[in-house]
Amino acid sequence: MMSRLAPRWPAWLFWWRAACAQGVSAQQRTWAGASRIPGPGGPWGATGTSPLVRRGSSSAPSCAPEVMLTRERYSVRRLPFSVVSEDDLAALERIVPGRVVTDPEELEAPNVDWLRTVRGSSKVLLRPRTSQEVAHILRYCHERNLAVSPQGGNTGMVGGSTPVFDEIIVSTTLMNQIVSFHNVSGVLVCQAGCVLEALSRYVEERGFVMPLDLGAKGSCHIGGNVATNAGGLRFLRYGSLRGTVLGLEVVLADGTILNCLTSLRKDNTGYDLKQLFIGSEGTLGVITAVSILCPPKPSAVNVAFLGCPGFAEVLQTFCTCRGMLGEILSAFEFMDAECMKLVGLHLRLACPVQESPFYVLIETSGSGAGHDAEKLSGFLEQVLGSGLATDGTLATDQRRIKMLWALRERITEALSRDGYVYKYDLSLPLDRLYDLVSDLRARLGLHAKHVVGYGHLGAQCWFSFDQPTRLITPDL
Amino acid sequence: MMSRLAPRWPAWLFWWRAACAQGVSAQQRTWAGASRIPGPGGPWGATGTSPLVRRGSSSAPSCAPEVMLTRERYSVRRLPFSVVSEDDLAALERIVPGRVVTDPEELEAPNVDWLRTVRGSSKVLLRPRTSQEVAHILRYCHERNLAVSPQGGNTGMVGGSTPVFDEIIVSTTLMNQIVSFHNVSGVLVCQAGCVLEALSRYVEERGFVMPLDLGAKGSCHIGGNVATNAGGLRFLRYGSLRGTVLGLEVVLADGTILNCLTSLRKDNTGYDLKQLFIGSEGTLGVITAVSILCPPKPSAVNVAFLGCPGFAEVLQTFCTCRGMLGEILSAFEFMDAECMKLVGLHLRLACPVQESPFYVLIETSGSGAGHDAEKLSGFLEQVLGSGLATDGTLATDQRRIKMLWALRERITEALSRDGYVYKYDLSLPLDRLYDLVSDLRARLGLHAKHVVGYGHLGAQCWFSFDQPTRLITPDL
Repeated sequence: MMSRLAPRWPAWLFWWRAACAQGVSAQQRTWAGASRIPGPGGPWGATGTSPLVRRGSSSAPSCAPEVMLTRERYSVRRLPFSVVSEDDLAALERIVPGRVVTDPEELEAPNVDWLRTVRGSSKVLLRPRTSQEVAHILRYCHERNLAVSPQGGNTGMVGGSTPVFDEIIVSTTLMNQIVSFHNVSGVLVCQAGCVLEALSRYVEERGFVMPLDLGAKGSCHIGGNVATNAGGLRFLRYGSLRGTVLGLEVVLADGTILNCLTSLRKDNTGYDLKQLFIGSEGTLGVITAVSILCPPKPSAVNVAFLGCPGFAEVLQTFCTCRGMLGEILSAFEFMDAECMKLVGLHLRLACPVQESPFYVLIETSGSGAGHDAEKLSGFLEQVLGSGLATDGTLATDQRRIKMLWALRERITEALSRDGYVYKYDLSLPLDRLYDLVSDLRARLGLHAKHVVGYGHLGAQCWFSFDQPTRLITPDL
Repeated sequence: MMSRLAPRWPAWLFWWRAACAQGVSAQQRTWAGASRIPGPGGPWGATGTSPLVRRGSSSAPSCAPEVMLTRERYSVRRLPFSVVSEDDLAALERIVPGRVVTDPEELEAPNVDWLRTVRGSSKVLLRPRTSQEVAHILRYCHERNLAVSPQGGNTGMVGGSTPVFDEIIVSTTLMNQIVSFHNVSGVLVCQAGCVLEALSRYVEERGFVMPLDLGAKGSCHIGGNVATNAGGLRFLRYGSLRGTVLGLEVVLADGTILNCLTSLRKDNTGYDLKQLFIGSEGTLGVITAVSILCPPKPSAVNVAFLGCPGFAEVLQTFCTCRGMLGEILSAFEFMDAECMKLVGLHLRLACPVQESPFYVLIETSGSGAGHDAEKLSGFLEQVLGSGLATDGTLATDQRRIKMLWALRERITEALSRDGYVYKYDLSLPLDRLYDLVSDLRARLGLHAKHVVGYGHLGAQCWFSFDQPTRLITPDL
């Protein structure tokens, strides 16, 4: 695809991406022992109180080893772009006065991805405040043949947000203004650098929710969410960003500002060009503003946790659930027994139901607490009566809901405490989903300490396998 | 947009479209008196029992006048494409044996759009059964420089489905096979020529519904729905086709088959090229197969009908409704007093509530009849108590639900009985929506008999104005 579209745009936006693509499987590896310690405002939230925040925050050593340079690890070749000169710095300073960062210490974090698997060697980071400034920057870099790497919250898991060589980092950090919010339609228009959690707070105060939620919400930028087509915890309920993102403003490589920032829920005028930018990871341009449709805030949330005798029963429970809970179903997560064992072992979280080969967490969000609890009870009766589930529990108060969510949300943390982890985030047809785990277990045998499967059904799934320490070599 | 993308594809797929675009405002005119009589299998359904079916089926004269040729009406110039020769016909006969239509009588209907505003003069219609046949046809026509016009159910309202000159019509009528349906995920994969109503029946028998519903469902093809990015009656609940269409198979102008037919709910591999074809009206290629996500069938449907004192109150009712009914809200339609007057006058449908400046129809679809009715009652109490609505009624049985829907669905029919109609289907920001009607009323004064507004809030709206007969000239 890239080769067909690339000729229409200057090459420099692509080469770092192509370089990244070469190392795609490696980028999916997580060496959990080296994970960066999230501080206030770090990738996993500022507060540390939500179970989500804890993900990945454990067992990080106080002095993480140096991350190998991407260009060395993957032997990628720098294309013949110009090198940033003193004149360039002066010119860029004129475009974003006082917001040209060249301090090596300040540049350390934006050069490394959160998983610490890739590292660039950028010597300049720019902090534009407006789309016009982004346009000026890109126009200048285009004319001077300087490579650029756009960056949002730098919380991505596949190394797409960091430079590969010495690209100029264009950070959206200061582009954090809300442009407008419409109280009737729920349409939010904001700059690309708005942090997801800040947007969530903003719209929740007005009776709406963001249509996406991620563990990294405390740091990730909405522009990055759109550029990576992030799914997340609300995917099942509110669907893909392709439906909820109504409009985008994008600055193309040559500095042209493409205004597709409509806030109409339906707009059939011409081709829907903004779709090309959703999930394109900054390769086609820099997203500078987003118009997004926020659904009304549900007033009641309930969570059920079930034990299932097999993966077939997990799938049948999903079917029954969709039928009986339909419109209030907001999450359907599963985890296998191996996950539960590790969560119990490393985090001392107790399994709330009888030991089972599989566990399912079901969340409902609706406008009537009593109705939702009643529906959930009916559903529980049905699945327990028919043997799809062997045991189940229901939580309606906030504390118990958080406890149940922690079992699912803290799996990553438990895995990271257990050893080195290779983590793959995959989409597969539902009925073949768990085959991957079984097949990997059979193939890897004793080479892997654990192979586990967990994730959201109906959207995507994570599969991780821990390797015994003896197999780990220092360059992983 | 077109001029930028066009050079990447052969010109012949574009010229008819460009020609149509010139006459866009004219295409939005409806001369209701000349509407084609829908028969069994006609554009508005086969049965005649649903209120939807009645739309447009009234007052059509038994012998409609000849439709003027598009090329004459809009003075568009035919580009130098080849003319279909006997050799071409023989070659096409080899590609789709027995499915090359050249009978002028059979070609009459596919040359004219349903609104009878445009007419082409195609002399050949092809009925491929497979994507491979479509690919062979397009490859042949590409090599021979023959113009092509793809056609689905030919139920479109803007003349996009009929040829402008003598293009070869490639009809998807025989491409009506369901490829697969997944009972757990609700993912349907089918050929582009499947009729929407047939698909609805198929998935409803399996406990699901199609994520879109249209008045034209008895005739329209799913490929055409996608090519025109149809919205329809379920837009508010299930969102846009951009979210529910998971994959497409498309044959490009040169015969290349582009397979984007994934059935994964989330697929972030590469650019999402299929999005370009959604809403592109066949200008980029012919959609030959669709993969679409069907939501579970709701077990309970309720309808409320309200009278509101002003458009501001309609909007506030919409807000309250979204908050209190949230997940079960499946339709929110409004109509003004003028619409109700015409519906009463021409169709003898009685207004079920006190006379008001505006009326609102609210539909809920959920998994628990009792719960939904209870929620609706609570909502009604709230809006009636606060003066947002001055009167209201609630229907829970099928007969009454149909009666209430008829008031909204038969507006078009009532208008057409009243005189000549200019009908515009518009998307506008919610709070400016009705200004158009007020402004038009003020501007047109006595030149228009009626200017009315109605439609779905949260998606789009229709505005129609009837002209007094004395203003009508024969060429409209």
